[in-house]
Amino acid sequence: MVEATFAAIHRHGYSDLTIQAIADEFEKSKSLLYYHYDDKDEIVADLLDYALDWFLSAVDDRTTDDPVENLRAVVEELLPVDPTDEELAGRHVVMELRAQAVTNPEFRATFTEIDERLHDRIAGHVREILDRRGVEGVDADDAAEQFLAVLNGTLIESVTTDRDVTPAMRRSLLTRLETLAGECPE
Amino acid sequence: MVEATFAAIHRHGYSDLTIQAIADEFEKSKSLLYYHYDDKDEIVADLLDYALDWFLSAVDDRTTDDPVENLRAVVEELLPVDPTDEELAGRHVVMELRAQAVTNPEFRATFTEIDERLHDRIAGHVREILDRRGVEGVDADDAAEQFLAVLNGTLIESVTTDRDVTPAMRRSLLTRLETLAGECPE
Repeated sequence: MVEATFAAIHRHGYSDLTIQAIADEFEKSKSLLYYHYDDKDEIVADLLDYALDWFLSAVDDRTTDDPVENLRAVVEELLPVDPTDEELAGRHVVMELRAQAVTNPEFRATFTEIDERLHDRIAGHVREILDRRGVEGVDADDAAEQFLAVLNGTLIESVTTDRDVTPAMRRSLLTRLETLAGECPE
Repeated sequence: MVEATFAAIHRHGYSDLTIQAIADEFEKSKSLLYYHYDDKDEIVADLLDYALDWFLSAVDDRTTDDPVENLRAVVEELLPVDPTDEELAGRHVVMELRAQAVTNPEFRATFTEIDERLHDRIAGHVREILDRRGVEGVDADDAAEQFLAVLNGTLIESVTTDRDVTPAMRRSLLTRLETLAGECPE
């Protein structure tokens, strides 16, 4: 179901997405889909929830006792060195749906929750890094917000331009991470 | 023309944009538009070029002898403290068109150029700041890329979620700027 919706958005784009297109990928009948869902947006909302859970559990699988490693895992999960075709397709689909969130309140609520949970996850790691070092005066929430903005900005750049900024951005996030972890920034 | 296209995208979204919708905003005949343009994408490409020139000249108007002030002007132009309704509408329209850039090579080329020019502009200011201070070992291009990612990430967050991250992000960019300009980061 989730895979079928993903494949249909990737093939058709959101604006040309129909229940029929999802049914085609699903190899099940359209009426079965209508039995469970009122419209395509409900199906897509399920896809987004699934994607978030999948992403967070992928990150959780890599969770260790070391908050520096845990933050690094978030960066590497979102900005892998060699993204697979499926990961690139995922960025494409997320971008399509993000654009809908401008005008669709339900998607907007979902992306608000996605970014809130990502932010909290990152802030937790940052806070633990700072606590262990006994650093004061750095706002973990602000630092996490900046991490998230760089991650989102880089993902969007990578799908909407031909500029290959991912290596530089991964490097700069990891440098920031090392700075938080106690090394000197310059 | 540019205003009409902007208004039509803001009203209808890109997917429901037609030459007729632009003509309606333009209060001119549809045939006049077809006389000048082959399709709606050509009109939209003109809008994007215009928007970039407008933005860069707005930044140029604030250009001083001080590269710190010049970089601050870029941040304040893109992330104003109190965005006007028109600026918010602009973010909405840009987000709609960015999403098209995933699959439309012409828009993709335009956004590549937009981000390239913005990057070069920011990198120029960063380089001048570093030169004046005699700082070595900081890569101005990487620093500019990070600025741009935070700016793009923040703009996208502001139009696709209900999270109000702009104040925190403006603060963190200005802090980064002060760090480049010679103050201590922590």
